[in-house]
Amino acid sequence: MRVAALLTCLLAGCLAEKPHPCESPALLSGLLSVSTQNEKLWTVAKYLYDALGQRVRIMELGTYENKSFTYDALLLFREAAMYEIHEHNRTCLKKPLKADFQPMAIPKDATLLGQFVLGSSSGPGEGLLVNSWAGDLPDKSGKYVSTVTEFGCVPVTSVSHTEQFGWVVTSFVNNIKGITDPSQLNPPEFCPDAEMKGSEVEPTDFLSLFLSKK
Amino acid sequence: MRVAALLTCLLAGCLAEKPHPCESPALLSGLLSVSTQNEKLWTVAKYLYDALGQRVRIMELGTYENKSFTYDALLLFREAAMYEIHEHNRTCLKKPLKADFQPMAIPKDATLLGQFVLGSSSGPGEGLLVNSWAGDLPDKSGKYVSTVTEFGCVPVTSVSHTEQFGWVVTSFVNNIKGITDPSQLNPPEFCPDAEMKGSEVEPTDFLSLFLSKK
Repeated sequence: MRVAALLTCLLAGCLAEKPHPCESPALLSGLLSVSTQNEKLWTVAKYLYDALGQRVRIMELGTYENKSFTYDALLLFREAAMYEIHEHNRTCLKKPLKADFQPMAIPKDATLLGQFVLGSSSGPGEGLLVNSWAGDLPDKSGKYVSTVTEFGCVPVTSVSHTEQFGWVVTSFVNNIKGITDPSQLNPPEFCPDAEMKGSEVEPTDFLSLFLSKK
Repeated sequence: MRVAALLTCLLAGCLAEKPHPCESPALLSGLLSVSTQNEKLWTVAKYLYDALGQRVRIMELGTYENKSFTYDALLLFREAAMYEIHEHNRTCLKKPLKADFQPMAIPKDATLLGQFVLGSSSGPGEGLLVNSWAGDLPDKSGKYVSTVTEFGCVPVTSVSHTEQFGWVVTSFVNNIKGITDPSQLNPPEFCPDAEMKGSEVEPTDFLSLFLSKK
């Protein structure tokens, strides 16, 4: 009886560690949506994320101040360049990108809010164990709350507060480890090699970049 | 080779059915949080839900217009009675409850928005398959979007729009099938048996009840 109890304990929870800040997989693809409290911005985007090559591609479809827009950008942090890509007319704008690559991660100084199960823990395939973390935004402009999976550190939601939009909720779905189409992380052939003049973009992280262009 | 492909297909998806509207488990316990776009109301509640006995208990801790509050209510739909319970001073208020019990479910006329994986499908325990449904609120006062797990029909989030609060987001976590403490679905001993006079409460569903008292 005691052996059975010990075994159950070992399998169920004794091996479980206290959640720790973590880094998301180096290669991720998926969908994300951004919605804002003041309803100014709402957008859905396909994203490709390559922390090894420090490359991010975002293909957005959204509305900004009730006008719909599309936006397709490739960010090459190692080359300090970004490309705004217009597939429909095969044009491309290369801009300097003055920013350090910020990997998707729970920062080491984040505070654990709690561990939760989305769905139910009562049956197989019915639940997802996640950890929610809070902390200060990199530029100390406000707070964030980020939720990632316990197993895999895959992003689920991120909530932060900005002056421009109020609360901003980013939700990630259909994430897979790996890059679905690696060619989408290289500039298309119709993109210029020479750098074009333009204002420098200074994103502080993956998401602020996503918002700063508005 | 063709056999292998067929097998993979069978295992991975051929057996998967198109999502259908579904009813949540008859007995559920868990936590829910409600947050509103205009920030008037924010609350976290422990809930017990018994569709067999048509009983609901909600134990809330929240803020309403920047003032914190607690609220503890037991709703007995079959008896058309609700109890407002104040454990701290062992008092209890019995009120008539004029409403039909509405089971937690995706209505048959709901429209499937899509099927998604929260987290990742790349590893075991890293993802949760969910279905998102949209439809009209029971009183046709607006729209809702509800997300439930594909396996088990466990609620994950529900978003609706109300005049009073703007967008209202309800998130469910730590759900388990069953009732953690069945005694909490009976009125405490200090509750009156005789019905007290009071205004009738007319919730249209589980959640509107939750909001209508504000």
